[in-house]
Amino acid sequence: METRSSPRPLIMFDPHPRRIDVLFNSETKRRLESLGDVIWHDGAPASDAHIERYLPEVTAIVGQSALPRERLERAKKLKVVFNVESNFLPNIDYIECHRRGIHVLSTAPVFAKPVAEMSLGLALSAARRIHQADAAVRAGNETLYGEGDNHDSILLHGRPLALVGCGNVGRALLPLLRPFGGEILVNDPWIHPSALREMNVTPATLDECFERAAVVFLMAATTTENMGKIGRAYFDKMQKGGIVVLASRAGIVNFDELLDAAESGRIRAAIDVWPDEPIPAGHRARRTPNTVLQAHRAGNIPEIWPWMGQLVVDDLELVLRGLAPQRCQRAQWETVSKLRSKPIE
Amino acid sequence: METRSSPRPLIMFDPHPRRIDVLFNSETKRRLESLGDVIWHDGAPASDAHIERYLPEVTAIVGQSALPRERLERAKKLKVVFNVESNFLPNIDYIECHRRGIHVLSTAPVFAKPVAEMSLGLALSAARRIHQADAAVRAGNETLYGEGDNHDSILLHGRPLALVGCGNVGRALLPLLRPFGGEILVNDPWIHPSALREMNVTPATLDECFERAAVVFLMAATTTENMGKIGRAYFDKMQKGGIVVLASRAGIVNFDELLDAAESGRIRAAIDVWPDEPIPAGHRARRTPNTVLQAHRAGNIPEIWPWMGQLVVDDLELVLRGLAPQRCQRAQWETVSKLRSKPIE
Amino acid sequence: METRSSPRPLIMFDPHPRRIDVLFNSETKRRLESLGDVIWHDGAPASDAHIERYLPEVTAIVGQSALPRERLERAKKLKVVFNVESNFLPNIDYIECHRRGIHVLSTAPVFAKPVAEMSLGLALSAARRIHQADAAVRAGNETLYGEGDNHDSILLHGRPLALVGCGNVGRALLPLLRPFGGEILVNDPWIHPSALREMNVTPATLDECFERAAVVFLMAATTTENMGKIGRAYFDKMQKGGIVVLASRAGIVNFDELLDAAESGRIRAAIDVWPDEPIPAGHRARRTPNTVLQAHRAGNIPEIWPWMGQLVVDDLELVLRGLAPQRCQRAQWETVSKLRSKPIE
Amino acid sequence: METRSSPRPLIMFDPHPRRIDVLFNSETKRRLESLGDVIWHDGAPASDAHIERYLPEVTAIVGQSALPRERLERAKKLKVVFNVESNFLPNIDYIECHRRGIHVLSTAPVFAKPVAEMSLGLALSAARRIHQADAAVRAGNETLYGEGDNHDSILLHGRPLALVGCGNVGRALLPLLRPFGGEILVNDPWIHPSALREMNVTPATLDECFERAAVVFLMAATTTENMGKIGRAYFDKMQKGGIVVLASRAGIVNFDELLDAAESGRIRAAIDVWPDEPIPAGHRARRTPNTVLQAHRAGNIPEIWPWMGQLVVDDLELVLRGLAPQRCQRAQWETVSKLRSKPIE
Repeated sequence: METRSSPRPLIMFDPHPRRIDVLFNSETKRRLESLGDVIWHDGAPASDAHIERYLPEVTAIVGQSALPRERLERAKKLKVVFNVESNFLPNIDYIECHRRGIHVLSTAPVFAKPVAEMSLGLALSAARRIHQADAAVRAGNETLYGEGDNHDSILLHGRPLALVGCGNVGRALLPLLRPFGGEILVNDPWIHPSALREMNVTPATLDECFERAAVVFLMAATTTENMGKIGRAYFDKMQKGGIVVLASRAGIVNFDELLDAAESGRIRAAIDVWPDEPIPAGHRARRTPNTVLQAHRAGNIPEIWPWMGQLVVDDLELVLRGLAPQRCQRAQWETVSKLRSKPIE
Repeated sequence: METRSSPRPLIMFDPHPRRIDVLFNSETKRRLESLGDVIWHDGAPASDAHIERYLPEVTAIVGQSALPRERLERAKKLKVVFNVESNFLPNIDYIECHRRGIHVLSTAPVFAKPVAEMSLGLALSAARRIHQADAAVRAGNETLYGEGDNHDSILLHGRPLALVGCGNVGRALLPLLRPFGGEILVNDPWIHPSALREMNVTPATLDECFERAAVVFLMAATTTENMGKIGRAYFDKMQKGGIVVLASRAGIVNFDELLDAAESGRIRAAIDVWPDEPIPAGHRARRTPNTVLQAHRAGNIPEIWPWMGQLVVDDLELVLRGLAPQRCQRAQWETVSKLRSKPIE
Repeated sequence: METRSSPRPLIMFDPHPRRIDVLFNSETKRRLESLGDVIWHDGAPASDAHIERYLPEVTAIVGQSALPRERLERAKKLKVVFNVESNFLPNIDYIECHRRGIHVLSTAPVFAKPVAEMSLGLALSAARRIHQADAAVRAGNETLYGEGDNHDSILLHGRPLALVGCGNVGRALLPLLRPFGGEILVNDPWIHPSALREMNVTPATLDECFERAAVVFLMAATTTENMGKIGRAYFDKMQKGGIVVLASRAGIVNFDELLDAAESGRIRAAIDVWPDEPIPAGHRARRTPNTVLQAHRAGNIPEIWPWMGQLVVDDLELVLRGLAPQRCQRAQWETVSKLRSKPIE
Repeated sequence: METRSSPRPLIMFDPHPRRIDVLFNSETKRRLESLGDVIWHDGAPASDAHIERYLPEVTAIVGQSALPRERLERAKKLKVVFNVESNFLPNIDYIECHRRGIHVLSTAPVFAKPVAEMSLGLALSAARRIHQADAAVRAGNETLYGEGDNHDSILLHGRPLALVGCGNVGRALLPLLRPFGGEILVNDPWIHPSALREMNVTPATLDECFERAAVVFLMAATTTENMGKIGRAYFDKMQKGGIVVLASRAGIVNFDELLDAAESGRIRAAIDVWPDEPIPAGHRARRTPNTVLQAHRAGNIPEIWPWMGQLVVDDLELVLRGLAPQRCQRAQWETVSKLRSKPIE
């Protein structure tokens, strides 16, 4: 790039394992190219040589390139990094980025709506045993008018509902839960109780969430503080037939105790994320009653893929105009080091 | 009753096939008894002799007793009839009741919330194939991260949604659909377009509903005007993968054409009500793909049973105070003769 | 009309003191004429001769013609009467209309939105003394930054608000009050507490409304049961500086005690309706502090006049199709005889 | 402070022209003292000696002390600065604060709710001429039933409404405007159109706002980019009788052209903020018709003063726990240098 004389911003791609054509459609590609010179690359992680070549001139990186301090020192023009994988990895010096006014952003918010809709769908399936009743009709052993198989069907209407974790996904779920009309409890140690009250929800301890709510939605990222924390002690506090929806990160629950509680009939569990993925062939969950089981498919639906490109271009437009990004999630330097969610393979 | 000298209203029960202890809990029984003298009876339809005995003194009937004109002429004190089965049967002279200021009411509104929640659950199950993915994990043939089985998953967010029929159930469903943020189309020939606009929905023809909506919720009662009306001509107009939720009355659809459309992959169908119930053992629907199948279980869940007693007592309190009933559905003399929904057996 | 051979419905006008050209614009006139043969008349009450002439053939009356039983007996084809003045007058035999299936309707609902917006505007003016501060700037004696004149300014945000009466106007006001986020208390003896709870408001006694609410909106019609009922005993229960908005009917308050309470500084009163109108020249209210005063102008704004014609035509369309009216207010035969609101002159 | 051995955070006050007892009540004082050692001071700006004495040990400053780079270099422990005056002044090196991870915050959000409620009250007063009608009744020259003085009264219901600027105040106003049901246009050059659409409003140019909206709420901070920008060219685009509410900063309008437009009857103007305050005695606005006039009193009402203390303590709790602040407004280093709103005297 020594010979680069263009005054236009340089935008470098390193999105692996995502593919550019999945993230960007023709419109967002066009918008991106109108903003600067784009170095397109995907299919494999960019090589060190590739990265080093563009580093001194790059304004924006779209991808998960490692950015230790020494690289940041050479990236004098870098203003923004877009993680398009959705987990903030430890391969970036976030503090140094903050110091240099470099925004490190993630397109994770695109997953909020599909996960929220799936989570509500899972809760309703569990509350009404929709999936089991469907299987029964197919097998020819249904009961009519819910005689029998409706004996433990419950309404969400009017019941307390709880969110453990109220980030992107929780905030997308909240409006879907409001019209059911019950109190909404939220446990999120990273949000001040006053801020929760301002959102018109009830700040609650984990104990209160499990004791009071008909459905507990586990929506928290895995952190150093909550790994494996949700286990039997909490499930035992639930009302019989209470529902646990696990749709963000498996790391926050004691998975065996979750299955024990479902197996015993104490709770119903709707599970989309797993300690090990793919799900091992003989995993006991496959035979556990009182569950709704999905193979980590809540967020990754085709229609939201091009939203990632939109978020990137929207925020790049803002940053190039000297404004703060507004669409992507920001890596908060205060808390990013505590995140422990596993990246996708 | 010739000897009856009590000035208290007489309340007669004839709720078969419902049971009093299902409809009334201790609180609503107590409230009822504070309002008048109650002739408890259930387990079988009241005999003619039983009915005739109390007819001259009765103020309120809770049940489905036949009330032809000649009986109404003898029921000089009758003010209100509570149908607790939920379909307005042709065994009552509704015009004569109207003339005499006798309210004929149904506790059907108690089913609105459970049917609305189930309908949303069915739509989400169909949109995300939750029930199929659950079955896949149990069978050990799931795909991870939605690779493959998410290829036609859709969001409800932002998409037009349609209600065909906007009575009790439709009105209970509306608030649950609002936060998805899309336009809501309503086709209901019995509601004025201006009244629909006032409800903040878009009045629409059936054609518009099927052409534009991602999900069409069929929520209409069967009437002389709509029996078998919804068939191939409409399903062919849907976008590929569009969802039809049939959760009120099977009579309004051409059921075979509905299954054809699902089988061809043109639409997805979520079905709770059937032309013949119980569902015949070899019914083709049991093998039809792109469906979610339930055996008429959307409304009849235990927690709403005692609500029927509450509605009866609430409205009886009003009627005895000289006010119009507000909680039950009223038999509209203008339209009741057009209803053709089948009663439960 | 003996010679009338048209099979089309006959629609007779008798709207005095309203004028047709105020109620109907070219579009609603056209719609009306497409529904039947219209006998246009206004400017003065229709003469008995005029009415008697058309009575045997008339299907719909738009106006306030007297309809005693003997006239109804001759009006064999009459299906609907539209009161366009907005108060149900005692010149109709409502019971006989009910018996004959004749709907007696009022276009009063058109006033709900303007009265609701004005009521909120009055509450905010009282809460923040907007009108007084405006007068102060004009007089050159304002205080800056609210120093002094903001000492008793209050927020509606988060505070309990009360509605006394929850008919058309109350229901139009409710959604405007919701986003302020406080509890909403409703006192309405004609609505069952269960129905109020279903509307997501708190049923309350009059005492509770005045004790707890920051603003009490008096929205009730005058009835035989509530005339002059709201007086000192209630105002004394209010928190100091509490606001009373009187925007429906003056008859329900003891007007002098309302002014006493404002004068003493105990409450603030926003008044749009008066015991005698026009307001007597020397009326003490004109000098009473802690008031916002309007001369019965909340409802009668030009843009809603043609809505009356729309309501008439919408409901006439429904009635002619054999459906129940949905847009106008119905005279409830149970309660209409208790109404005592004064007609406009 | 050389001798200070306490491991507790040091919190320094320099809130002039605000007073501690106005901002903090006994509860927030207690909470503050539980968080660290507090150096109470108010009544005058803290002296340089006072500031310098505590600077090396201070963790949090509550006030508007000057913080140039050289002071920041000595404030090794400083984590957060709370501006309690509400305008970000140029006496802080914001870039250096950012680099050092020092949050510079303002308690300005406490004013959002009172300004929002006042703004709605002003719009309703202008739309219905509430203040003028009140003055007319007092003067004895009112017209009854709105005859005459309602000729240009308008409903907000269903009409497009526009916000110019959508920061704290705009966001507090939005929910109050939603139930009126009309489209909401927003012009805010610092918010991405995609972010506005996500808030369920319509991004709009200034031209579109003034051409289409019945009420334009001017809610923007004064910046280098918008000073004096809103003038005749925009007012001329409004529908006759359109309403302009100026309740944030006077600097963004050409004030004389605003008054010209009101005087001509083209628009109605509701004005709370002024180019020069106090308002000059002979200011022409005092005699300008079609206006509602307030002397900068929208935000500063007593009940929100202690909220400032709450915001300070809430965010200090978060910062001391290693989390990002959530309750106060943050000085965005990208844009803070463009702000030109005048501080209070």
